[in-house]
Amino acid sequence: MGYVNVSWELMERFMNEVFCRYGIPEEDAKICTDVLLESDRRGIESHGVNRFKPIYLDRIKNGTLLPTTKMDIVKETPTTVVMDANNGMGMVASYHMMNMLIEKAKQYGMAGGTIFNSTHYGIAGYWTTMAEKAGMIGISGTNARPSVAPTFGVEPMMGTNPLTFTMPTDEEFPFNFDCATSIVQNGRIEYYERLGKETPAGLVVTKDGGTMTDSGKILKDMRAGDCALLSIGGLGEATGGYKGYGFTTIVEILSAALAGGPYMKELTGKNPDGSNRMYRLGHFFFVINPEFFMGLDTFKKTAGGICRDLRASKKAPGADRIYTAGEKEHDAWMSRKDTGVPINESVQKEFAQIRDELGLDYKFPFED
Amino acid sequence: MGYVNVSWELMERFMNEVFCRYGIPEEDAKICTDVLLESDRRGIESHGVNRFKPIYLDRIKNGTLLPTTKMDIVKETPTTVVMDANNGMGMVASYHMMNMLIEKAKQYGMAGGTIFNSTHYGIAGYWTTMAEKAGMIGISGTNARPSVAPTFGVEPMMGTNPLTFTMPTDEEFPFNFDCATSIVQNGRIEYYERLGKETPAGLVVTKDGGTMTDSGKILKDMRAGDCALLSIGGLGEATGGYKGYGFTTIVEILSAALAGGPYMKELTGKNPDGSNRMYRLGHFFFVINPEFFMGLDTFKKTAGGICRDLRASKKAPGADRIYTAGEKEHDAWMSRKDTGVPINESVQKEFAQIRDELGLDYKFPFED
Repeated sequence: MGYVNVSWELMERFMNEVFCRYGIPEEDAKICTDVLLESDRRGIESHGVNRFKPIYLDRIKNGTLLPTTKMDIVKETPTTVVMDANNGMGMVASYHMMNMLIEKAKQYGMAGGTIFNSTHYGIAGYWTTMAEKAGMIGISGTNARPSVAPTFGVEPMMGTNPLTFTMPTDEEFPFNFDCATSIVQNGRIEYYERLGKETPAGLVVTKDGGTMTDSGKILKDMRAGDCALLSIGGLGEATGGYKGYGFTTIVEILSAALAGGPYMKELTGKNPDGSNRMYRLGHFFFVINPEFFMGLDTFKKTAGGICRDLRASKKAPGADRIYTAGEKEHDAWMSRKDTGVPINESVQKEFAQIRDELGLDYKFPFED
Repeated sequence: MGYVNVSWELMERFMNEVFCRYGIPEEDAKICTDVLLESDRRGIESHGVNRFKPIYLDRIKNGTLLPTTKMDIVKETPTTVVMDANNGMGMVASYHMMNMLIEKAKQYGMAGGTIFNSTHYGIAGYWTTMAEKAGMIGISGTNARPSVAPTFGVEPMMGTNPLTFTMPTDEEFPFNFDCATSIVQNGRIEYYERLGKETPAGLVVTKDGGTMTDSGKILKDMRAGDCALLSIGGLGEATGGYKGYGFTTIVEILSAALAGGPYMKELTGKNPDGSNRMYRLGHFFFVINPEFFMGLDTFKKTAGGICRDLRASKKAPGADRIYTAGEKEHDAWMSRKDTGVPINESVQKEFAQIRDELGLDYKFPFED
């Protein structure tokens, strides 16, 4: 499938303008655009421009995502915040939440927040990186549409529930562990589908305990509840499947219980009659300030040392490199920063279509 | 291998007295005994009475574990504590740390602590359960002797590094997720060896990228650096091995970096000449108070609801039950509380030997 690079500047300008035309206030649009493009900067194609139309614009159109984000602080203490996002932009709510928590952690060393009645908040690593840029540890997770089965189960019950940590190092890039607690997440399967690729075997469990690889059918069956993703460790207990299941459950609990928000089957985005309803997602965020322990420099040096020693350790026959979390994302940015965002054909079509519908004046390089 | 049940009361009295005879102050001995027995109460045989002699008594004897625990608070703020355990009992240091953090979280909603120059702290879930009993969320982890290889690596670099969460629910038992981030941990392989059992295939990587099942050889090769455990997700990246590797690394970083303590190859407990040295382990602890969010009752109800819904979801053909984390531990306690600790033959011999060496006056039921 043909990719065409588009400059970061053009993408940013275009997405900002489109978001604004969809009713998102200008300052908010900038946040949302930056979150989506940051995913592409890091090479995470599943959560970037790929999702601009289906997960954000289409949902604003169908009324399940409100372009203006009314943020109600339901509870605030010196170290904690509970926010109602009123079904507005999850990315805007998360941005303001993180700014509040970073200020609190500067003063108190630790801070935690939760958002309810929210919507898709982009890559979890964007929020934890805000903490890291402030010299702190960021931890975040979110619930999502049910797609993951518990160990010994076959029914999609939980979201793919990322449990994300970003931590400062003394290297050029932080330790950034940002991924779903399922083996793969929906976005990866949507991405396989877009590219017309099969999903690798063993990542999904069918009703009868088997697996399947047809990406389109997986997405369809998953929405119908006839197929589910598996948590890290896979089927059963022998290879640690219950451990991945445990991590997925931790995220499900923390995303809902701190605010008393909805969870699991309540997050389908569908009414019993099949009509759309609000997603009402929940997210959680924790910020830890190393200056309240033995200091940021000490933390960075130790964290960096661990990463360097891991990369320098003995490799398996045939492996030429050991990575640490965040390194591939940094590599992606290094290789893309001057050449722009690689846009696949499917997204190329979406972008041209959005422009034409809104009557905007943009010419994309893939139209040459 | 024949198990014989010994009453909890007898085990407690015996272990307390032995710990005291080994120079541990009486109040400290009670803490250590309780941590070890709590592991058996939960059915986690790898971390209970099994380890009384090899991991605690033998190390006190060989000088790598000091029976008296000098705890220096190196830094303290309203929400944080950094403690130097001076190579004393890790369980004693952790007990005092958790009490400090719970008090801080009562007042500030969030608290975090780290201990360095420590020793094996028992099951991580003991510490997180202290928080849970106080109506709070407990999170803890620890580094350990290197035994886990990174993705694409074959060298034992990191500990089996538990990342443990215990959270209050409205059920009879909490959500308690307490396990290594490797597929199995050393204790499990030591336990297989004690029982003369093979380790299941695929949990360990050899130098050439293969696997092996001889439990004794795994332990021996691991100490020699010729074999390594794998993190959840297993070999390579296809089934999410890099995710388990990421979790193991998070624990390695948090256990060392908040205090600037040693890590990975520095934690072998051996000098280059093969002689023993202090383990100098690091642990971390976080406590989150739901009363600073939407309240404990709200948290419990939501967390319990999630667990109940998971257990009630559709089961795979042939599976008769779906568990949530902590449920098996609760079941173990229910089935053991009146019958006592099941002691295997190998531990029976150790206990009789310890008694005879110290000239104590105990008669065990396995000697009938």
